[in-house]
Amino acid sequence: MGNVGTEVVRILRDRADDLKARVGAPVVIRGIAVRRIEIDRGVPEELLTTDADALVARDDVDIVVEVIGGIEKPRSLILAALNSGKSVVTANKALLADYTGEIAEAAERTRADLYFEAAVAGAIPVVRPLMQSLAGDKVNRVVGIVNGTTNFILSAMAATGAGYEESLAEASRLGYAEADPTADVEGYDAAAKAAILASLAFHTRVTAADVYREGISNVTAEDLATAKALDCTVKLLALCERVSDEDGKERISVRVYPALLPLSHPLARVDGAFNAVVVEAEAAGRLMFYGQGAGGAPTASAVMGDLVMAARNKFYGGRGPGESTYAKLPIAPMGDTPTRYHVNMEVADRPGVLSGVAAEFSKRGVSISTVRQEGAGEGARLVVVTHIAAESALAETVAALAELEFEVIVKSVLRLEGTEE
Amino acid sequence: MGNVGTEVVRILRDRADDLKARVGAPVVIRGIAVRRIEIDRGVPEELLTTDADALVARDDVDIVVEVIGGIEKPRSLILAALNSGKSVVTANKALLADYTGEIAEAAERTRADLYFEAAVAGAIPVVRPLMQSLAGDKVNRVVGIVNGTTNFILSAMAATGAGYEESLAEASRLGYAEADPTADVEGYDAAAKAAILASLAFHTRVTAADVYREGISNVTAEDLATAKALDCTVKLLALCERVSDEDGKERISVRVYPALLPLSHPLARVDGAFNAVVVEAEAAGRLMFYGQGAGGAPTASAVMGDLVMAARNKFYGGRGPGESTYAKLPIAPMGDTPTRYHVNMEVADRPGVLSGVAAEFSKRGVSISTVRQEGAGEGARLVVVTHIAAESALAETVAALAELEFEVIVKSVLRLEGTEE
Repeated sequence: MGNVGTEVVRILRDRADDLKARVGAPVVIRGIAVRRIEIDRGVPEELLTTDADALVARDDVDIVVEVIGGIEKPRSLILAALNSGKSVVTANKALLADYTGEIAEAAERTRADLYFEAAVAGAIPVVRPLMQSLAGDKVNRVVGIVNGTTNFILSAMAATGAGYEESLAEASRLGYAEADPTADVEGYDAAAKAAILASLAFHTRVTAADVYREGISNVTAEDLATAKALDCTVKLLALCERVSDEDGKERISVRVYPALLPLSHPLARVDGAFNAVVVEAEAAGRLMFYGQGAGGAPTASAVMGDLVMAARNKFYGGRGPGESTYAKLPIAPMGDTPTRYHVNMEVADRPGVLSGVAAEFSKRGVSISTVRQEGAGEGARLVVVTHIAAESALAETVAALAELEFEVIVKSVLRLEGTEE
Repeated sequence: MGNVGTEVVRILRDRADDLKARVGAPVVIRGIAVRRIEIDRGVPEELLTTDADALVARDDVDIVVEVIGGIEKPRSLILAALNSGKSVVTANKALLADYTGEIAEAAERTRADLYFEAAVAGAIPVVRPLMQSLAGDKVNRVVGIVNGTTNFILSAMAATGAGYEESLAEASRLGYAEADPTADVEGYDAAAKAAILASLAFHTRVTAADVYREGISNVTAEDLATAKALDCTVKLLALCERVSDEDGKERISVRVYPALLPLSHPLARVDGAFNAVVVEAEAAGRLMFYGQGAGGAPTASAVMGDLVMAARNKFYGGRGPGESTYAKLPIAPMGDTPTRYHVNMEVADRPGVLSGVAAEFSKRGVSISTVRQEGAGEGARLVVVTHIAAESALAETVAALAELEFEVIVKSVLRLEGTEE
């Protein structure tokens, strides 16, 4: 009974009549596992227990809602529930991204329901649209802002010009960042969600380990200023896309990193703790889903939708769609991932510098879209925006620039998303 | 096999392997009902028939996809399919909005699947999120731009300053308006979708006859200019909301009309033939869904998602959620509907005019938010923006203004949405 659990229990109790009408039968709370019973939670004490295992094992429990977080405890509880044919509703993205195979297989074995809409983007329906609404389409790309903490920090940096540390402190003060913000700011949370989204979009098992990940702790006030000058902003994006290898075979690339995004892009306007996910599919075209990506009530809304579906299935028979991994697409190495880059360099403004820098890009097949020189003399800036190039070619270019006889200091390399070539 | 049917058949044939993997069994086209067989459609001729009734009645047909449009023919085909326990996937908003009771009851009787994601907002998942994702939440409001033709015309009027007729002609030329555009421009199409959205959101049977409807054919270039001056635009909105009667009892209001919308509102940026739907729910907060609302491929994407779900249910057992009408909320009369208004008047700029006009509003309990006077002398303009007031009180005020001894000509009355009080 944390934030989300409290809201779920509140809705179950306050709206029991509606839920009964919608399910076809009453939804009854058999018990609530908590860490300590003593705290007054405003629910009848006989519902509370500290023995989650015993509660899950009870014969009169049909559906288990897991919103405790962590990995090991929820893993064993969820497996126990699924193995005995109980339906599971969970919001646990980290668990799903690490143990999706084991958990999904348990659900398939007993034909139990496993619902997890709340694991990605809070109240925003994304899991169900990908699994069901787009089940007859071919999804080519999913791009999302799926972490509220980092989006709050980056929005604050963009709005105020403040640095990362200062904006993180503000986020903590306002309750948008946890005491230990690592999972959010280093992109682990977004990577877990990216793994789940990619699994659903591409019918391939993707775990967090398959996701290339960079957080926002290295994003500077200067990066945001650069973005602003380019009519862009910086967002932490979760990107899942189909890419072709050199033989034209399909692979998938799943990655999380801060990127420049033109202000004209719909995701650029997603500010503060909001989330949004853009899905591009062959027949559907571009869809966007927007809403509150975290918080007790929004997450509880997603849990409750799943709970009603699981309860209906228990009552009427039937089952929600299970895991779909038939496509088994390989994961493209990050080095092969095609992206555009924005490279900000400090150079000495001397004859030959520009052509020397340009040569390093061109030697490695990185085609330049625009070059801008700012200032003059020793502290001059050279800003290069490339066409789409492979990550590895860009990395080699940046390494080579450091070796040039005239001085080039690469101040920042930012990937650029949401632009056409 | 119109626009949508052609795309559905294309996907069924081109992506048969994917569909088989996703459903668990092959999805086989048993037959395609067409008006004339002679046209070369690139499909084996033995699949084509002009006898839709016989095709639907065949024993080897499990699922019927209806994308023929119209009312009487699809109605009898869908009822025949449902009555014999066949699943139905339809994109027919007009039929559903008129005959929802009869069709839904047939589906309930035989426990057949009735899916209709494609009936509202094309490829955008809206039906499934409302029926499933928000099944445990309380939806208070749904506001959408759900007609691409009218949105194209209004977007063109806003961008070019052209009048309605000219912009409609442009829409026709580009294929965004049908030869007879009545259903779109007079709001019938949006009203059918509003009825469906309201039914799902409020668990109450709502038909097109319950929807208050105004189209866009009276919107003038001057209205758009006024909107622009107010940092607003004009959009044809479908609005479904819970409202309270004087005893605080819940009722619902469902209406379609062109309204002023601040440019800062997310729906104001939905341009051209795109659609978007905003859903406000108690726990979820505000969600937005955006994408292509019409066209062969996007609509086919929604049909295919439903088709895969219906096929899975046939194969594994189970059933999608049926109609939910338990709440049976009464429809509020339009006169009671609370809205803000923007009233544009031509007045003679004489002492006492302003106070005389203001008195007419105040007498009927319509509280004024702002008054602006433009110009002077005979052709002066008085622009009044009200606080939230009942539709009937505003209508009485406008009627009374025409009776004043000094001349007041009401040039336009526009409702104002998307603003806080």
